[in-house]
Amino acid sequence: MGVCLEGIGDEMVFRKVPGKGVRITQITGADLPFETEKNVAGVAALALVNAANPDSGFEIEIHKKIKAGSGIGSSSASAAGAVFGINELMGRPFTKHQLVDFAMKGEALASGSEHADNVAPCILGGFTLVRGYNPLDVIKIESPSEIYAVVLHPHIEVKTSDSRAVLSPNVTLKAAITQWGNLGGLIAGLYTKDYELIGRSLQDVIIEPMRKKLIPGFENTKNSALDAGALGAGISGAGPSIFALCKGQTSAEKVAFAMSNAYLETGIPFDIHLSKVNDEGVKTI
Amino acid sequence: MGVCLEGIGDEMVFRKVPGKGVRITQITGADLPFETEKNVAGVAALALVNAANPDSGFEIEIHKKIKAGSGIGSSSASAAGAVFGINELMGRPFTKHQLVDFAMKGEALASGSEHADNVAPCILGGFTLVRGYNPLDVIKIESPSEIYAVVLHPHIEVKTSDSRAVLSPNVTLKAAITQWGNLGGLIAGLYTKDYELIGRSLQDVIIEPMRKKLIPGFENTKNSALDAGALGAGISGAGPSIFALCKGQTSAEKVAFAMSNAYLETGIPFDIHLSKVNDEGVKTI
Repeated sequence: MGVCLEGIGDEMVFRKVPGKGVRITQITGADLPFETEKNVAGVAALALVNAANPDSGFEIEIHKKIKAGSGIGSSSASAAGAVFGINELMGRPFTKHQLVDFAMKGEALASGSEHADNVAPCILGGFTLVRGYNPLDVIKIESPSEIYAVVLHPHIEVKTSDSRAVLSPNVTLKAAITQWGNLGGLIAGLYTKDYELIGRSLQDVIIEPMRKKLIPGFENTKNSALDAGALGAGISGAGPSIFALCKGQTSAEKVAFAMSNAYLETGIPFDIHLSKVNDEGVKTI
Repeated sequence: MGVCLEGIGDEMVFRKVPGKGVRITQITGADLPFETEKNVAGVAALALVNAANPDSGFEIEIHKKIKAGSGIGSSSASAAGAVFGINELMGRPFTKHQLVDFAMKGEALASGSEHADNVAPCILGGFTLVRGYNPLDVIKIESPSEIYAVVLHPHIEVKTSDSRAVLSPNVTLKAAITQWGNLGGLIAGLYTKDYELIGRSLQDVIIEPMRKKLIPGFENTKNSALDAGALGAGISGAGPSIFALCKGQTSAEKVAFAMSNAYLETGIPFDIHLSKVNDEGVKTI
């Protein structure tokens, strides 16, 4: 599952130009390749353009505002933005669900595997569940209006290889059953806008116990969020970011303050975001 | 998760009598113990009565219509009926959710473990999800109005010990992820009344592959149900019953006919039920 945040995101500029293909003309905020085939946004855009075969070319400017490797979905933002922008310029030949498929090609360049965990919420907004692949089956769930997210991003690098190496290929049936319950409870809570049920269900007994050791200060920061009234908290993406979901902005502000204070103890620099859920997904500004 | 069926069920009669305790005065349809402490309905009733401490006793007649060991929840029906009936006679001191807790005590006598998988749908009706225990957390999901169930009950005994022995204590993370997707998709499909999504999600990649070998003719019967238009099909409870969910009564009739024909090939006697979902649960008749 994934969720799309409001106010944290990249900005991109698109131009329809004579000719064919996709060209990246400007990149600010990050040191990324300009070659289309080596750039996440470029690869996603090419997948779309190759499928649509329009009689024009496209130029893209990328203004990165999300740091790579944060666990906040930086590469997905680029991929989602690219397919969204070009689809708009072409007059929307593809649905948002179809765009997820193209954006996954960009995600594959960044993460080594085609998955929709992050591009789906970027494009569709709200909460998303990837039921499965072959064919891709993504379900969008509207966010209850009072859900706010706090995301604390420690400025450390967790290597993808490390973050994969700690995952065991097997889980106990007992833990899987517990997590089926939590997953089901979370989805039921989102549909019924039952904030307490959402809170009780925001528990990860599978991945978090394996990966939390890679994130200094995780346990203490998570507990401080829960003590301050967060509905739940956990690892954002593959980490190192730590997220909390809260009911209402006032609660989120209290939780953000508590998490900041807790993380200061580690001595590791960080930034922290407080955001409503973006129920619309990537959009024209 | 579980689901409550309409028209398949036990009938019970309750009487408030002078004195204390719970006495089982009549049992038809099955050879079950009359001693309250050795009878599933008796144990569930005692759990309730001990908590409420009413100034009267209760008599129970049990008229079994569901065969034990079928995987249709025979013991759960007795436990659910007992706590429901006595709670009604006491003037409903407990909520339906609380009754699930008491009924679990009866279930424990039958299955060796206190679980709510079957008593929860019997009491609450519709579809139920057991999110977790300690404390018990059960979520009721209203059934989309056109869901019908077909349940084929082969007259063979699958020993509980066999049905447990085939379960591996571990599952692959890959299979667990697939099943999280299916579980999430099923719940989303139930809330949004998206029958196709319900169908795509009705896949069990965890337990069914381990247990289906205990049920002769399973694969063939399941496939015949799907070919005839069932949304999905699988093992009912721990087996040996095979269930299919369908959209609408006409489709369910077609599926029931196809499953019957397929099962006839095994030469094993069976009975087959076609039922709407009972969205109310156990009730006064």
